[in-house]
Amino acid sequence: MILDGSKLPISFSVYADKEDPACRIASCFKENYKKEIEECDVVTFEFEHVDDEPLMLANELDKLKPGLDVIKLKRARHLEKEYLRREGFPTPRFVTVEGGNEALRTLRDEFNGVGVIKRSEGGYDGRGQFFIKGDLSSYNFLKEEKGYFVVEEYVNYDYEASIIAVRSEREFKTYQPTFNYNEKGILVYNYGPFGNEEMIKVAEDLTQKLGYVGTMGIEFFVKEGKVLINEFSPRVHNTGHYTLDAAEVSQFEQHVRAVLNLDLGPTKVLVYAGTVNLLGISEPPLNLVKLGNLYWYGKREAKKRRKMGHINVIGDDLNEVREKIDNVMQILYPNGPDL
Amino acid sequence: MILDGSKLPISFSVYADKEDPACRIASCFKENYKKEIEECDVVTFEFEHVDDEPLMLANELDKLKPGLDVIKLKRARHLEKEYLRREGFPTPRFVTVEGGNEALRTLRDEFNGVGVIKRSEGGYDGRGQFFIKGDLSSYNFLKEEKGYFVVEEYVNYDYEASIIAVRSEREFKTYQPTFNYNEKGILVYNYGPFGNEEMIKVAEDLTQKLGYVGTMGIEFFVKEGKVLINEFSPRVHNTGHYTLDAAEVSQFEQHVRAVLNLDLGPTKVLVYAGTVNLLGISEPPLNLVKLGNLYWYGKREAKKRRKMGHINVIGDDLNEVREKIDNVMQILYPNGPDL
Repeated sequence: MILDGSKLPISFSVYADKEDPACRIASCFKENYKKEIEECDVVTFEFEHVDDEPLMLANELDKLKPGLDVIKLKRARHLEKEYLRREGFPTPRFVTVEGGNEALRTLRDEFNGVGVIKRSEGGYDGRGQFFIKGDLSSYNFLKEEKGYFVVEEYVNYDYEASIIAVRSEREFKTYQPTFNYNEKGILVYNYGPFGNEEMIKVAEDLTQKLGYVGTMGIEFFVKEGKVLINEFSPRVHNTGHYTLDAAEVSQFEQHVRAVLNLDLGPTKVLVYAGTVNLLGISEPPLNLVKLGNLYWYGKREAKKRRKMGHINVIGDDLNEVREKIDNVMQILYPNGPDL
Repeated sequence: MILDGSKLPISFSVYADKEDPACRIASCFKENYKKEIEECDVVTFEFEHVDDEPLMLANELDKLKPGLDVIKLKRARHLEKEYLRREGFPTPRFVTVEGGNEALRTLRDEFNGVGVIKRSEGGYDGRGQFFIKGDLSSYNFLKEEKGYFVVEEYVNYDYEASIIAVRSEREFKTYQPTFNYNEKGILVYNYGPFGNEEMIKVAEDLTQKLGYVGTMGIEFFVKEGKVLINEFSPRVHNTGHYTLDAAEVSQFEQHVRAVLNLDLGPTKVLVYAGTVNLLGISEPPLNLVKLGNLYWYGKREAKKRRKMGHINVIGDDLNEVREKIDNVMQILYPNGPDL
């Protein structure tokens, strides 16, 4: 967001530790967040699981975009899912329960032992999600857990997809949807445009109902052309990274434009494109710049499953993009990603 | 270069004053340049008129790319022009002389009083160039000047054009040429692709003969399909800024890739595109983000003729690009640019 937004007349100041990647390209702060937030015009975020104090202060000062309401929804899966159901959006069948024991019982009795148990709090990139197909006894460690859980049907979808939407106080736009390939709850690669008009409608309704401002990623299950919302993310989204290379204005710049109430840019995709995530890769794969654009995040430490960067590829059609993705996958993960 | 190159696993450290635009997005140094240059892997530049000491040190340490030879050629127009002529490249007819008096005499006697007198040193963006059409007496202020001068024929060209070439130790590529509109020696706008195969050939020969590494901009006069080299710039070039939005890999990233000896990226232009310079504009024209991508450089002070930023526009064909450029020009310079 900083790299793509700094061409606008904006100074970024980031709530982050000095060693964090953002601090190579922007000034950073942490202790003196009050002064920094008071001095800035707008506060936004690239991740909803951030410290409360600066968020609360930014909210009090009416500088937080998108707002606290949507963060609260996102920090508790059951609230997000109940909101979607209440507002009439298509979701998988689910039940909210309290306590891990009740979650296991519900899965057994109401879902025939097949489905997904999700902790309500702290989950992203597949964390806190358990895909269970009958072997309930392996999950007894959940029995003692307190807090809310979502118990959800297992959707035997044809594929996963997502859409990147942008809404400002005056405009709404979306990029074309993409096909997403996830493994163990984490995005491995995606490509597009891989269209489905229904997603555009859902995105417009959802962002409008939320009074949302900024870029939003919405993930779907697609089965026989029908869509179910898996989840939404109130921020720039991993499945929209391809817009950095395939669109005139990226999802990152759109977010900046939206929260500053500038005119949004075009969302037309100029070329077929895709993204491969660098999951747990410890050294930058410089040999891959031949195949695409390398985005190396410069995170301090590589861990299993951690997104260390991504590669964007483009092509004249989806086949060319898929071929490039296959090439990149072969080089990065000759034995498949270790997730 | 920093904004576009920082997605690679590179840290930029910039020889610049703290208040300079680059220092918002990279660490900067000036006094302690010896230590910084000793610690870095490669030294490059975005402008050939920089301080000698760090250049010399980088050259001694064999870290300077492109090299000192080409900088020396560029700092003295007569050396650049004589090099081009000696190597058989097409140039306008010119004579090198010493002293302003001799320059005026040569223009009068050998060019019938019509042509261009250029100071050999310190010139860029039209500085130190005098377009003379018979009114020689208005230029008597040159009479006392010492140093080398180039006296050149006035080329009644059909249009000006340029090409952005990239060469590494292993590869050579060019983007497609562009049509350039200059006023008083300064680029106002350009657009493309506006092809001429001859320029590609010249670019390949020239970069090869110079043993050049990096991005280079070469400017031409085009008359009846034939090209004459006006000048070359051993760096990223204003007429290649459109590649930020119209190509998968921009001239800036290509430069970084070349000087680091990474594989170059594709130079295929995905869409028709153009750039309008923000000349002497003191406030960022945020209303223009509707028409294109705004690049605001954040320079400390606006001055007449100073490039404060640029707007990139794209289109499905050259007509659409020209229309957008016209719109931007009307809004920016309702009475024409003040140059």
